[in-house]
Amino acid sequence: MMPCAIDVHTHFVPEHLPPLPGGSLEKTWPSMAKGDSCDHRHVMVDGVVYRTVTNQCWSTQRRIDDMRASGVTHQVLSPMPELLSYWMNARDAGVLHRYLNEQMARIVADHPEQFSALAAVPLQDVDAAILELEHAATRLHLAGVEIGTNVNGIPIGAPQFRPFFAAAERLGMAVFVHAIRPAGVDRLVGSPLLQPVLAFPSEVGLAAASVITTNLMTAHAKLRLAFSHGGGSLGLLLPRLQHAWRSFDSLREQVPEAPFDQARRLFYDTLVYDRATLLYLLSRFGDHSLMIGSDYPFTIMEHDPVGRLAETAAGAATLSKLRSQNADRFLGRRPSAS
Amino acid sequence: MMPCAIDVHTHFVPEHLPPLPGGSLEKTWPSMAKGDSCDHRHVMVDGVVYRTVTNQCWSTQRRIDDMRASGVTHQVLSPMPELLSYWMNARDAGVLHRYLNEQMARIVADHPEQFSALAAVPLQDVDAAILELEHAATRLHLAGVEIGTNVNGIPIGAPQFRPFFAAAERLGMAVFVHAIRPAGVDRLVGSPLLQPVLAFPSEVGLAAASVITTNLMTAHAKLRLAFSHGGGSLGLLLPRLQHAWRSFDSLREQVPEAPFDQARRLFYDTLVYDRATLLYLLSRFGDHSLMIGSDYPFTIMEHDPVGRLAETAAGAATLSKLRSQNADRFLGRRPSAS
Repeated sequence: MMPCAIDVHTHFVPEHLPPLPGGSLEKTWPSMAKGDSCDHRHVMVDGVVYRTVTNQCWSTQRRIDDMRASGVTHQVLSPMPELLSYWMNARDAGVLHRYLNEQMARIVADHPEQFSALAAVPLQDVDAAILELEHAATRLHLAGVEIGTNVNGIPIGAPQFRPFFAAAERLGMAVFVHAIRPAGVDRLVGSPLLQPVLAFPSEVGLAAASVITTNLMTAHAKLRLAFSHGGGSLGLLLPRLQHAWRSFDSLREQVPEAPFDQARRLFYDTLVYDRATLLYLLSRFGDHSLMIGSDYPFTIMEHDPVGRLAETAAGAATLSKLRSQNADRFLGRRPSAS
Repeated sequence: MMPCAIDVHTHFVPEHLPPLPGGSLEKTWPSMAKGDSCDHRHVMVDGVVYRTVTNQCWSTQRRIDDMRASGVTHQVLSPMPELLSYWMNARDAGVLHRYLNEQMARIVADHPEQFSALAAVPLQDVDAAILELEHAATRLHLAGVEIGTNVNGIPIGAPQFRPFFAAAERLGMAVFVHAIRPAGVDRLVGSPLLQPVLAFPSEVGLAAASVITTNLMTAHAKLRLAFSHGGGSLGLLLPRLQHAWRSFDSLREQVPEAPFDQARRLFYDTLVYDRATLLYLLSRFGDHSLMIGSDYPFTIMEHDPVGRLAETAAGAATLSKLRSQNADRFLGRRPSAS
């Protein structure tokens, strides 16, 4: 039997999307169209192809075959982030989210050993988001929720989102933060690919910093909160934040707990594609904070997320944490047999 | 005799600023006003105190005393970045720049062993910037130029700045890139201090990435180009950029030289306040790329920039590079006796 390895960063797109709700005028409502081959489909947004995806996005059998090949024993499904639809009116977005959540819940119910899932919620309306979170927790039995780094430009550390995080803590729902519509796009020169490549990790770093500078984990100590892409640039923002926190009384008054300590209460995935970086994150955040993340099945994915861990030459106890124990804790699962 | 230690990141503000040029309507023209004590003055911009500074900004004697105390033997002066004034019309900004450059040139002429200086140029008008760069090189004998990470929102990797970098290469002028008016400010939650603390390093990382994705060092191999704040977030953007470069043919077509390799042709200062981070930058960029930087004499400065180097437990050869040899090469100075 393969040792346990939980990949917390894998994306889901359904084979079909529901029709635009009656009466809605949403131009950004997504739909699926036939691709060039039977195992590809186009995600259409506003009349153009947003992304062409493979049936790995929805076929549990293909996912299970791929997991076997890569040594991953359990995948955490989260919606392709663009489907979070924060730019729609919340009622329409909620229809899409409910559909996604039910689709993922069915996969989890059919294959509970292989899959967990993170819900989508309409965070542009915090009250509606909390209702959907409750539904996902109590009716659909999902493990947590995926949210963006910002909601229409407002970073997740902003006070207006605090009731949502309080609800996630109360419900025991894990929160996975993924880059979306990032800041700094006007600072890129070159291919449109540079937006996910460079602006995503910048955005994740700033979002993670925003929960530190607003003491989210101090106020909600039982919240289980993870950041994608290894926390993005956070690991290099943090030493400067820590120095400023030591240097300026006003910062220590606003932020009682040291940034270094707060950062070690968050979770991060290992999606950094590089041994030296993984070692740096281990020293920065601690071996209790990192969990496998691959971005499966998108083109930029890490193809050997389990093998990457071995490159760190970490001991068996640390490897066991990174492979599954930290993810079990993040997800609130009973410990995996390993 | 103290071993050589060159601090490439120290700022200069003159005790007096010239009057607004006749006929100008610039509201952002800066001036100096009396502070609360005789060794403090206020930099006034648009009628309010932009920053209160000490006479360390202009007093060579105070600087030399402080250098002796911290083990720094040579400081590279660069204007307080806000004085770069890219938001003014170029003619007015050029008047300010010429004044700053002449003031710094006088300090260097009086104390050539202790000081070098980096010019200010009006990069909002590339032709005017090249003329001022030529003046600074050939008439004022300055070692290089300080530029911002962006000019009114346009990152320095943008094609319009290419003639400026070609001129710097031709003139042998070192280019030091400092964060200014950063992207991502709308992603911060908390004190206004967070702008320099968190958005500066994000901004530097994206600016450095912009010269890599546009092959600046491939086209201008003799250019000597340094980034402040240890390259900001670049060290954590780079592994993802390298992975994407390996994964996408279109990126390799646009960027012939590997991002990891390009990054090792740049210089970075050591202003990261942290041993683990410095070790990570050494592994990422190489020990030929790092130079002491302190942000002297501003409040956020690193007070023991030379001592930080010893924390790395690097060997004598590496320490010698970090202390002075890399900076000598960056500045085009004859090697310091060490």
